Amino acid sequence: MSASLWKSVLITGASRGIGLELVKELAKSSTRPATIIAAARNPPASTDLQEISKTYPGVYIVKLDVDNQQSISSALEEVQSLVGNKGLNCLINNAAIGSSVDLNAVTPETMMKTFQTNTVSPLFVSKAFLPLLQTAAAQSSGMGIHRAAVINISSILGSIESNWGESGNFKSYAYRTSKAALNMVTRCLAVDLGPDGILCMSLHPGWVKTDMGGPNADLTVEESVSGMLSVLSSLTESDNGGFKDYRGQNLPW
Amino acid sequence: MSASLWKSVLITGASRGIGLELVKELAKSSTRPATIIAAARNPPASTDLQEISKTYPGVYIVKLDVDNQQSISSALEEVQSLVGNKGLNCLINNAAIGSSVDLNAVTPETMMKTFQTNTVSPLFVSKAFLPLLQTAAAQSSGMGIHRAAVINISSILGSIESNWGESGNFKSYAYRTSKAALNMVTRCLAVDLGPDGILCMSLHPGWVKTDMGGPNADLTVEESVSGMLSVLSSLTESDNGGFKDYRGQNLPW
Repeated sequence: MSASLWKSVLITGASRGIGLELVKELAKSSTRPATIIAAARNPPASTDLQEISKTYPGVYIVKLDVDNQQSISSALEEVQSLVGNKGLNCLINNAAIGSSVDLNAVTPETMMKTFQTNTVSPLFVSKAFLPLLQTAAAQSSGMGIHRAAVINISSILGSIESNWGESGNFKSYAYRTSKAALNMVTRCLAVDLGPDGILCMSLHPGWVKTDMGGPNADLTVEESVSGMLSVLSSLTESDNGGFKDYRGQNLPW
Repeated sequence: MSASLWKSVLITGASRGIGLELVKELAKSSTRPATIIAAARNPPASTDLQEISKTYPGVYIVKLDVDNQQSISSALEEVQSLVGNKGLNCLINNAAIGSSVDLNAVTPETMMKTFQTNTVSPLFVSKAFLPLLQTAAAQSSGMGIHRAAVINISSILGSIESNWGESGNFKSYAYRTSKAALNMVTRCLAVDLGPDGILCMSLHPGWVKTDMGGPNADLTVEESVSGMLSVLSSLTESDNGGFKDYRGQNLPW
């Protein structure tokens, strides 16, 4: 990870899984961001996150329920005071829910709840933090995490094109639709924020052994996060509005 | 429109715009379906629809609020009694809402409401009517509207790939995400229902002069519907899981 690039970063859903590992790897890195903000719905419940925050300086825990506008507003105030007039350089929308729900099992409630957390919340977290991203973007040139970026943690399961043949065997109407819709949010934001120098992309972490991914997944969380951080470190203008996996491969929409 | 193909068809959102014109054109056609079911949330409010139903035999009006499970169940019973043991050959999920909502104006409520009507409702209408589609599918071979099909009226605005450059100028977070998610529903249903001989596809009507499309649109509703009916008449197995426009052009996801 080439690293003087990193300045400040905010990661949602940081209490466990990929979010927690992103915080940990960034905190340990020799080229780490000065300010790492770990946002979680219920921080006291994550002893791992508390431990990291105690061990490494510059790791701040912020309470954030991404589904709640009031919580987003409160978190914004806290983050504003942490980053000051440097603004926020990188927002990683990682908080998500999901599981396998086939045609027989899917309900309107599951569809709506998953869309709320996986699609609507990343949009409104991004919208709320936009002033801080704009502040950071105004202080650099080019595009990438050194300036300002919104990274939406998406999934290959959100690829409409890839949902066919063997890949179509994973049935999840709620998760798949929410991530396809998130990819559209990515693209809309990339169109709208690109002119301000804020890069926006979707990133697929791979199939990872987490509570969500289950024990049969391909990758350890360390492998996934190491790959993703390498991808993030090398983002440039041509990645705005893109969809990549943890190895840097472009994925079809 | 090659036509002995058409047997029975149900169109949602049939009180006006594209839905109404689909009912009218099908009813007038020399090769028309024997049974045309026009579903609308509030049928008495559409004098045009009442008129068509009086003028042409075999056009049945069914009350259906696609956002309401109870209404879907009631409509299913009515349709069941209309189609009997022949089942339903073609379901056109046309009911939708939408307008231009940019980043500044978009609210969580608009996102959720649009996702409900444009994505969740087509899924649950399809799921409810699946037994009737399966009954029809069991009586033919091949794939297409002669056997059984679910046609989701989508939009080029739901194409993530196309949301770039000049095409990105149309700002609508709510509508775009809902139609991208609908395209994922199409693909999930195509994977799941294809083996039963039920074709599922997304169809873009073009930019049409309707209440939704506005007066500056490219196409009259007659031009759009004429094109769409021609596309529908020529569907085959290779179109399952596809995304086409009213001219039969394949669109990118």
